[in-house]
Amino acid sequence: MDNDLLPVLGISLATTSAGIYKKKRNDVTLFQLNEGANMAAVFTKNNFAAAPVVIAKRHLRTKLQTRFLLVNAGNANAGLGKIGEDFAIRTCKAISDYSGCTVESALPFSTGVIGERFPYEKINSVIPELIENLGTGTWQESAKAIMTTDTVAKGISKTVTLSGKNITITGIAKGSGMIRPDMATMLAFIGTDAAVDPQTLELLLNEAVNSTFNRITVDGDTSTNDACVLVATGMAGNVMVDSTSNADYAVLKEGILKVCENLAKAIVKDGEGATKFIVINVKQGKNLQECLEVAYTIAHSPLIKTAFFASDPNWGRILAAIGRANIPDLNIDNINVYLDDVRIVTNGARCDEYTEEKGVAVMSKSEICLTVDLGRGQFEETVWTCDLSHDYVSINADYRS
Amino acid sequence: MDNDLLPVLGISLATTSAGIYKKKRNDVTLFQLNEGANMAAVFTKNNFAAAPVVIAKRHLRTKLQTRFLLVNAGNANAGLGKIGEDFAIRTCKAISDYSGCTVESALPFSTGVIGERFPYEKINSVIPELIENLGTGTWQESAKAIMTTDTVAKGISKTVTLSGKNITITGIAKGSGMIRPDMATMLAFIGTDAAVDPQTLELLLNEAVNSTFNRITVDGDTSTNDACVLVATGMAGNVMVDSTSNADYAVLKEGILKVCENLAKAIVKDGEGATKFIVINVKQGKNLQECLEVAYTIAHSPLIKTAFFASDPNWGRILAAIGRANIPDLNIDNINVYLDDVRIVTNGARCDEYTEEKGVAVMSKSEICLTVDLGRGQFEETVWTCDLSHDYVSINADYRS
Repeated sequence: MDNDLLPVLGISLATTSAGIYKKKRNDVTLFQLNEGANMAAVFTKNNFAAAPVVIAKRHLRTKLQTRFLLVNAGNANAGLGKIGEDFAIRTCKAISDYSGCTVESALPFSTGVIGERFPYEKINSVIPELIENLGTGTWQESAKAIMTTDTVAKGISKTVTLSGKNITITGIAKGSGMIRPDMATMLAFIGTDAAVDPQTLELLLNEAVNSTFNRITVDGDTSTNDACVLVATGMAGNVMVDSTSNADYAVLKEGILKVCENLAKAIVKDGEGATKFIVINVKQGKNLQECLEVAYTIAHSPLIKTAFFASDPNWGRILAAIGRANIPDLNIDNINVYLDDVRIVTNGARCDEYTEEKGVAVMSKSEICLTVDLGRGQFEETVWTCDLSHDYVSINADYRS
Repeated sequence: MDNDLLPVLGISLATTSAGIYKKKRNDVTLFQLNEGANMAAVFTKNNFAAAPVVIAKRHLRTKLQTRFLLVNAGNANAGLGKIGEDFAIRTCKAISDYSGCTVESALPFSTGVIGERFPYEKINSVIPELIENLGTGTWQESAKAIMTTDTVAKGISKTVTLSGKNITITGIAKGSGMIRPDMATMLAFIGTDAAVDPQTLELLLNEAVNSTFNRITVDGDTSTNDACVLVATGMAGNVMVDSTSNADYAVLKEGILKVCENLAKAIVKDGEGATKFIVINVKQGKNLQECLEVAYTIAHSPLIKTAFFASDPNWGRILAAIGRANIPDLNIDNINVYLDDVRIVTNGARCDEYTEEKGVAVMSKSEICLTVDLGRGQFEETVWTCDLSHDYVSINADYRS
């Protein structure tokens, strides 16, 4: 994580321990947004969406301005049925009671174990303290407080210039396992002091998420709690950005994209047990859909993931994965495969110049690009993933013990 | 494996070592089928089908009777392009040269590492010996000779009575990793001395495979080499079975189904690193397709597989998998989930009577049935799978070293 995450004017933070974890650590963080801040949010598409996702979406539908984001780690408040929704509402109610805002102005976010009773009493007991301390917290502290199986906190700041004004973009995220497209972040919070109109903010978030958080996978498991929020406080005094404002829009988009890309890659690099970061690039597809199908089939193959872990250029497993991807009329004779710059497969068969030594040299690196040329079109997609190690099994076999 | 696999009149076996493995072991086996035997076969749907699959299918299209099945372990003859096909043909040619049969009467089957040059010379050097020794080999020896990462040989015999005649059905299979539907066996050879007409044999094989080999998954990776062969020698002297012969057809079908079921379950139980056998039963679906979608999403979830390994009833991961399965309009409030007889989820939320102790008691068993009631229809599907352990990673990280 960037050690000097920049504050975002208009967003006040506070972090504390509510005692959700047996071993004391900060596990709750509160964001207060200034009056007039605009916000966009995307959520998991899992049918078993957690209670906080259900409630956050319900509160957003009221069109009341969101003033508070309450985030806890250690308990996902998921799989509890209607009672879980009641628990989530109670935390928003506590914020309302102590701050004077409406209940619907507060959005809950939770991450952690699914299916255990949600300890809303513990959270509510620290809400007065959190509200009192708003402005004392930092983005760094919040990034740490939202971690679960993450081994490092994830955050980044970027600055850009819009209509002559310096603009700050700061983002934090958490996520390590149960990571795959459809909001793979688990949780990400991005704030900017730029003034951005609400529709443009939605557009910016969707575009950024689609090419970053929705292109990463650790284990193919989509979380019940994934959410990504983008807040624009408007405190920087720039001319309001809208999607027709050309230059400013492009600059801001690039900045937000960089922040999301950094956070998404950080999640994969911190994937449970991950020892390698792998870029899977599928080119020359007939359409984006089939490029993604091939990329994810490779990215989710336990055999390929373990081969990456072992630095074993077992490219036969890569061919087998391409072959089982659901691509109609695939002519394998047109397929080329590369590990970084080393061509391993030419026209569907082992490349004559390829040697095991060349393959091992690439596979031994900590960051590897696997490129597949399908040789049947002009489309291209990229997915970021990691390897499958002994530690993935250890972490997930021991998670609740 | 059944220690006393019964010979099948009309099928002669021979097994030897061609030195494909560094450490000497039997790695080649030859089946000779009697003149007049009928045969049905199904193959992998992987677009990167291995050369022996391509050649076997090509030889079958000639409609010449198949007289020889040549099977080797240690090298899959896959990913080599056209030269691999040439290698496979050369082995059939050697059989033709020494036996006098046509080249197309021999079918090649290979399993092992993908992408390494196929040592057809080694195989061809033992073909005279194999042909000379036909009849000296046993099904047990063949079951052992086709193993790769398998830890146990897999075989079973059943006897049934058709029109007053005793009928034998004997099958062997190999497979442990790179296992999932669309011919999950890797390789299976089933012989019976019953007389069965060719169309009926096709029907019997397809029905049996569909509900057994095509319902197992270890790691979701479909092999490039999967094949399943059913031979009916007609030597038992029964009245020719056809699909309209009612009683006999039903009895034979049941026998073949039992053999395939036994072999398919044996493959999952011997799944790479598997410590547990898991039945995933999805009920009350709107159609078979969605039952399978839910069952496979659960069966392929690394998080659920590691939880089974850890005997951890982390049912939240099960709900998350059900929720991310691609089922339109799924109402989670109608979903019930059971571990064996223990209800863990009622109407989409943790069951009131459920306790962690009850869950752990079931999860500690070596065979577990996970049942999901979708509560939206009358259809049902079952999938067999295993857990994901440290040994899966070890086996696949070290496979080629």
